[in-house]
Amino acid sequence: MSCIFCDILAGRAPASFVYQDEQVAAFMDIHQPPGLGHLLVVPRRHAAHLADLDEETGGRLFVVGMRLAAALRVAVDCPGVNFYLADGTAAGQEVSHVHLHLLARFRSDGFGLRIGPGYFRAPRAALDRAAASIRRALDDQPEG
Amino acid sequence: MSCIFCDILAGRAPASFVYQDEQVAAFMDIHQPPGLGHLLVVPRRHAAHLADLDEETGGRLFVVGMRLAAALRVAVDCPGVNFYLADGTAAGQEVSHVHLHLLARFRSDGFGLRIGPGYFRAPRAALDRAAASIRRALDDQPEG
Repeated sequence: MSCIFCDILAGRAPASFVYQDEQVAAFMDIHQPPGLGHLLVVPRRHAAHLADLDEETGGRLFVVGMRLAAALRVAVDCPGVNFYLADGTAAGQEVSHVHLHLLARFRSDGFGLRIGPGYFRAPRAALDRAAASIRRALDDQPEG
Repeated sequence: MSCIFCDILAGRAPASFVYQDEQVAAFMDIHQPPGLGHLLVVPRRHAAHLADLDEETGGRLFVVGMRLAAALRVAVDCPGVNFYLADGTAAGQEVSHVHLHLLARFRSDGFGLRIGPGYFRAPRAALDRAAASIRRALDDQPEG
């Protein structure tokens, strides 16, 4: 199975890198908003989904994202930044190698989170039931 | 200045918690998709923006997000999860306390990243110039 991000990380495919260390790397996404401020931060070692990523590398992904967000604000002079990650094709993941999107944001640029139908203000009792169900699933995880 | 998330963390405002430790906490967003799978992971200590957040807590935010994503997949039986973070009002940040959104995703549910006008496939030379500019800004950061 070939992976375009693994090819990029191995130097077999072109990319415009902004950062590299032993755990993660960041490069420009090929698709850009008008201001060219769209980055991807990826783990060096192939991990298709979050469930395949070790936690240390996950934490590093976010820390490098924080530094890159600050750099983006300076380089692109943007007043805001979005982080976006899609885990699973149902969530919009198009490349099966974990990637954190960073997107320079400008007021009224039309980017952001798209809200689907049926979004509603939930009553407390429903939120409590949902939270209890998620806590149970969390308690059942191997790490405890 | 009052902060609704600080009020929640201090027990002065209601929330349906799914996780708490010394650095971060997670609770149900009051606004939910039909399947009730929308969580917020927040630092305990007030940080308005990513620039105000220490890196250790930032890394922890993501690690806890990874565990919660796995729990969401079980509890809500969703095939995907989105992470979303808005840093700055221009990016859509509505509460001035860093928060990582986790959103359970189902195929064709209408949620996802909204793409604004002018999004394009950038030529390599433009990507290289943008990357160089971001690398310079990164090199100029205090941590080196």
